[in-house]
Amino acid sequence: MSYDEQTVIDRYFRHLGAVRTDVVLGIGDDAALLRALPGCELVQTSDALVEQVHFLPGSPPRSLGHRALAINLSDLAAMGASPAWAMLSLTLPQIDESWLGEFAAGFGVLARTWQVALVGGNLSRGPLSVTVQLTGQVPAGTALRRGGAQVGDELWVSGTLGDASLGRAAPSAAEAGGHADWLRTRYEYPTPRIALGEALRGIASACIDLSDGLLADAPRIAAASGCGAWLDVEQLPISAALRALSGESAWERALAGGEDYELFLAAPPARAAALEGVAARLSVPLTRCGQLRAAPGVELRRGGAVIQFSQSRFDHFAP
Amino acid sequence: MSYDEQTVIDRYFRHLGAVRTDVVLGIGDDAALLRALPGCELVQTSDALVEQVHFLPGSPPRSLGHRALAINLSDLAAMGASPAWAMLSLTLPQIDESWLGEFAAGFGVLARTWQVALVGGNLSRGPLSVTVQLTGQVPAGTALRRGGAQVGDELWVSGTLGDASLGRAAPSAAEAGGHADWLRTRYEYPTPRIALGEALRGIASACIDLSDGLLADAPRIAAASGCGAWLDVEQLPISAALRALSGESAWERALAGGEDYELFLAAPPARAAALEGVAARLSVPLTRCGQLRAAPGVELRRGGAVIQFSQSRFDHFAP
Repeated sequence: MSYDEQTVIDRYFRHLGAVRTDVVLGIGDDAALLRALPGCELVQTSDALVEQVHFLPGSPPRSLGHRALAINLSDLAAMGASPAWAMLSLTLPQIDESWLGEFAAGFGVLARTWQVALVGGNLSRGPLSVTVQLTGQVPAGTALRRGGAQVGDELWVSGTLGDASLGRAAPSAAEAGGHADWLRTRYEYPTPRIALGEALRGIASACIDLSDGLLADAPRIAAASGCGAWLDVEQLPISAALRALSGESAWERALAGGEDYELFLAAPPARAAALEGVAARLSVPLTRCGQLRAAPGVELRRGGAVIQFSQSRFDHFAP
Repeated sequence: MSYDEQTVIDRYFRHLGAVRTDVVLGIGDDAALLRALPGCELVQTSDALVEQVHFLPGSPPRSLGHRALAINLSDLAAMGASPAWAMLSLTLPQIDESWLGEFAAGFGVLARTWQVALVGGNLSRGPLSVTVQLTGQVPAGTALRRGGAQVGDELWVSGTLGDASLGRAAPSAAEAGGHADWLRTRYEYPTPRIALGEALRGIASACIDLSDGLLADAPRIAAASGCGAWLDVEQLPISAALRALSGESAWERALAGGEDYELFLAAPPARAAALEGVAARLSVPLTRCGQLRAAPGVELRRGGAVIQFSQSRFDHFAP
């Protein structure tokens, strides 16, 4: 679609996102030219949203534009990196101007919020999918990793868990009352924890973003650090909305729901006050919910007792 | 496909490509950590191959792996950049071990040839498509661009043109004689002109890679440099194979065929000897075939006369 491609790029994407002085040459040549900060390491990630796999046909394009960038920003947040430059690969079944305008708006607002410049990409005809590649920077040697934590380090999580998994089902006001819009927003417009990730440099001993749910992601941080962990499900941060709608099973959704894009991190007990300071300064709740231990695997506790819980059991409860 | 995804990444992609000391952290965390060279600019590009659009169902996976990386390497070559780190986003309808092995082999051999490390990406179920994002580096201020050439600069092209457009049709030995395998290779395994691009820094005044064919790409370099151009179609470099099979119409295919991934560049006449030196040193043919001029548009000449030729006319000849 060589004519259409150029027109679409010029109209919707050429100047999308932030204006950055480190972009020597943006969209329009064979490649972009970018200037890295001295003394920093580059932090690169890529993630895709494919129709029928990651979202349903008819999903709001503004939300897709936001989410395609947000899931990549969340990866950078988990590394403690500051985002800089994005590339967008978009495959579209047809050129729909209204869809493109909404998609670009969702992408663009989030990009400007976090000072991300769109510097390249491509457009193809084909089944709808969105791939974003994002590069950020972090002072050399300060990146947060999944590994690096030690036995005894405490486990913390940002925000509240499980809301996106309820919001994904797009509950009606009849089903969710006054919480419906808020829950839907938690799914459609996740908040990448960039400022938190930057503030955790030098404090957290390990960090991961929660895309697949705590039940899947907690073992990753424990295994990468060469240890196990316990989590107290009664300590998991649960929103008023999830509490009101899920009641006694709220913790199950918080544990297994996925797509929260909150940060899950480890830190030595001596840094608890520093973490509480960061939480207060950024107005982002940080909740202590477990600890790393020598025995491998992740043990779940509730009211002092060890409990069993599996993802497959939870799936029956999914909306 | 969370179980499959991890297995597939571990088996085929975790250690694909070159081992580079500037990769601080590769595949396996939320993002990769990379160390840029001081005094350089980053050069970033992204390109995709979508089934039914860029290739037919049943295309050899080894060729797809090669081409997905080669088309991105070619973009870096056109900027005069040295490649470094790739990310691969792969959408597959199903996990086919034999397909994956061939795809990874095609990607991996080319990656090692040009010292590219695969540092991340993602795998999704869905209609077959391959998106590669590639980052390279160039000494600050020396990148080749499409613009920057001047009226009077001569136009040169590397290699030979039009072979890939014949090879795409996968001609049989009956159709193409002893040329069949060579032509097919020119399409399935294009050679990115990385070493040539690097050598052109400080010599070429503008450069572009020929993905859409000279007829589409020549106006881009002329327009970006704020001028027009003439091309002598009798000077276009044509292989013995194309000459044997296309005869008198070989120049039409050379002009409009596409997917050659050769470099097309401008340089002041005083640098002709330097260009010939580069060509001899690298054993890459460089052929002078036109010149930039003040009048806008690209004029085609043949035997001293101006001729008319349009892409749409050529399309009727396509195999």
